Amino acid sequence: MPPKLNELAATELVVLLARREIRAEQVVQACLERIAEREPQVQAWSHLAAEAALDHARKLDRGAVQGLLHGLPLGVKDLFDTFDMPTTYGSAIYASQQPAADAAAVALCREQGAIMLGKTVTTEFATFNPGKTRNPHRTTHTPGGSSSGSAAAVADHMVPLAFASQTAASVIRPAAYCGIVGYKPSFGRISRAGVKSLSDGLDTIGCLGKTVDDVALFTAALTGERGLLELDATHTPRIALCQTHEWPHADADTQAAMTQAASVLARLGLSVPMLSLPQPFAGLLQAQSEIMAFDLAHSLADERLRHADLLSTSLTNLLKMGQGITLEHHRSNLQLARMARSMVSAAIGEHEVLLVPSTTGEAPATLEQTGNPVFGRVWTLLGLPCVHLPFSQGQTGMPVGLQVVGRFGDDKNVLRAAKWLMQRLPEVA
Amino acid sequence: MPPKLNELAATELVVLLARREIRAEQVVQACLERIAEREPQVQAWSHLAAEAALDHARKLDRGAVQGLLHGLPLGVKDLFDTFDMPTTYGSAIYASQQPAADAAAVALCREQGAIMLGKTVTTEFATFNPGKTRNPHRTTHTPGGSSSGSAAAVADHMVPLAFASQTAASVIRPAAYCGIVGYKPSFGRISRAGVKSLSDGLDTIGCLGKTVDDVALFTAALTGERGLLELDATHTPRIALCQTHEWPHADADTQAAMTQAASVLARLGLSVPMLSLPQPFAGLLQAQSEIMAFDLAHSLADERLRHADLLSTSLTNLLKMGQGITLEHHRSNLQLARMARSMVSAAIGEHEVLLVPSTTGEAPATLEQTGNPVFGRVWTLLGLPCVHLPFSQGQTGMPVGLQVVGRFGDDKNVLRAAKWLMQRLPEVA
Repeated sequence: MPPKLNELAATELVVLLARREIRAEQVVQACLERIAEREPQVQAWSHLAAEAALDHARKLDRGAVQGLLHGLPLGVKDLFDTFDMPTTYGSAIYASQQPAADAAAVALCREQGAIMLGKTVTTEFATFNPGKTRNPHRTTHTPGGSSSGSAAAVADHMVPLAFASQTAASVIRPAAYCGIVGYKPSFGRISRAGVKSLSDGLDTIGCLGKTVDDVALFTAALTGERGLLELDATHTPRIALCQTHEWPHADADTQAAMTQAASVLARLGLSVPMLSLPQPFAGLLQAQSEIMAFDLAHSLADERLRHADLLSTSLTNLLKMGQGITLEHHRSNLQLARMARSMVSAAIGEHEVLLVPSTTGEAPATLEQTGNPVFGRVWTLLGLPCVHLPFSQGQTGMPVGLQVVGRFGDDKNVLRAAKWLMQRLPEVA
Repeated sequence: MPPKLNELAATELVVLLARREIRAEQVVQACLERIAEREPQVQAWSHLAAEAALDHARKLDRGAVQGLLHGLPLGVKDLFDTFDMPTTYGSAIYASQQPAADAAAVALCREQGAIMLGKTVTTEFATFNPGKTRNPHRTTHTPGGSSSGSAAAVADHMVPLAFASQTAASVIRPAAYCGIVGYKPSFGRISRAGVKSLSDGLDTIGCLGKTVDDVALFTAALTGERGLLELDATHTPRIALCQTHEWPHADADTQAAMTQAASVLARLGLSVPMLSLPQPFAGLLQAQSEIMAFDLAHSLADERLRHADLLSTSLTNLLKMGQGITLEHHRSNLQLARMARSMVSAAIGEHEVLLVPSTTGEAPATLEQTGNPVFGRVWTLLGLPCVHLPFSQGQTGMPVGLQVVGRFGDDKNVLRAAKWLMQRLPEVA
């Protein structure tokens, strides 16, 4: 039996759609059928626009082929404003909000012919208080956050691609826990206009998909970088492994993923050294946590002042922590981040990319929290491009992987290296 | 006759209010009376919240003194979301928009006891298509833009302080044309959450006031930088004059303002050299224009796609220009900006601040456009702190001045130098 349309990669779908070998309506229908079957268990969606998506699909099927995403259904993280769907930011404060406009990234995808299938669950204001979503691999486990619904929906074949965003670890961690590809571009690549602002120096738009080519397609559509449409993964990237200063947080499963990657690369005859980051980088984890909390206390000022009763206890505590950070301390954190950013290219040295942990290990067996963001924070603060590679499994059989990280602005090479690695790492999994 | 309450500086008002020597209701009433008298000519406001402001004032008068801005009325540029006032972004598209929340900066000022008097007119999406506002000094002349209403309202004593924002020259130019102090902080100082996003790397929140201490007070309230509350202007700043690469755009009035400043400083016995910026800086003017247009074509994607008929011709053309800029060209612009940012501190050298043109000259005698932003663009792109000093008049008697610019993050010294200069430059005007 051939794979169902909802199981195909986005790059496969757009080719079939552009050739008119399949209709957009069929793709949307296949996604909706999967959602009807699985949503009661997975709960990935905060709003499903079934009729509007079908209408849009039929309209696209009748008209000319338009754009790189013609006929492709997308899931939109409910942190992104949408003019035709309610937008809650994962908070009861915005339970009935209907924005006047689309976020720029949503509008730009529509311009490329994409169909918005619905809004996916985000944690509360993309921070740490979970939504209703469950891990599709095992519904007793967290899907990770904050892009919980986007990751679960893609992993469960409800939609081929979905919007995500990362302020701490919100793209990479749910990608890892759900066993899909997650891409956080270099800071500032994709317009944030119309996405709820949490931390101006950290918030980064990204996406979740099934393959590296899929997340590259999404990014090409949003940025116009056509070179991402044909990632040449024939040349061998210059890779270093890096445990990072956060390595003590890695459990046996993440340690095993690093060992596995090292042995695959060694068997390919590659010299892949273990690289250490300079000592000042050890301070970035705490700096990121504090910068994020400081910024949240400002960016969520209205919510804090007028709707304190509708904020979760954990977010309230996070905002209090942020309010307690002095301006002097905040500035020293920013100064450390600037210094580390200026050092990181030299630290990567002759290598093109680093292979580093994505998470502490498998998704925790809980729905009360979204897991530890420790392996995402530093790369977000550094603003570097990151791609999560889902190539292994942990001891209980849940997905585990690593992320590829590269230099600021070197996204194309990072995606190329990620594609190369995904063609090799899983073979011995 | 003592000055009316609406004519006092913000720093004077907050002292009288905190001592309970005057009531907030009186201040609001004085502002409203001035508005009633002058608004038909000046048209600074897109929405006036007279009753809500009076209610809030009475509530503050009854309660404890709270915050740095206790009882102070503010004007809010209509680019900032407000939960209790409509927010149009200066566009017919948003004619009936009522946001769900306050912009963070607005909420933070309310937390400090400020009263929101109303929304002030912005040009269309803070770009170049003018609103209805006129220059209070001469109503046949533009007030400048995009913070047109905020500048006119402060200059006309309708409100002591007002929010502004700058993507090209939208704080400094209206301050100059209306003869008041304008302050654009270092990039990223004040939270932009809830302010319509136009260009993520350029948009900067600032404010307009009557004195340097007033804009410093405003910023202290928003950022918690208490050191701004007592600007010590006793020590002589190390100043250089700088014509900038845009000097050929300066008309006789701006040239005369530079000459006047040079002669005042010389008479004080100071050695104030004329500094040149490195050659690569000559490319920044065009780079800023192009980066802004490129970003606008992305950030206003929804408006461009769904409401093309409601955009002005000039904005439509600007967006088309932005869409025509290739990604490669955009990245070379960003690269130039990064290089210039890394060079600028060395270029300022031993000096603390530069004294540079704010505008080409007086406000043009037109309401059809908002004047030339040429002297604002480069400093916005560099992200440096700028303060406009209104110390002179042009040949027809309209306000003219210069701006003080300093190193990134050195806002306190820039404000200190601005205060020192404002105590000396106007004396011989």
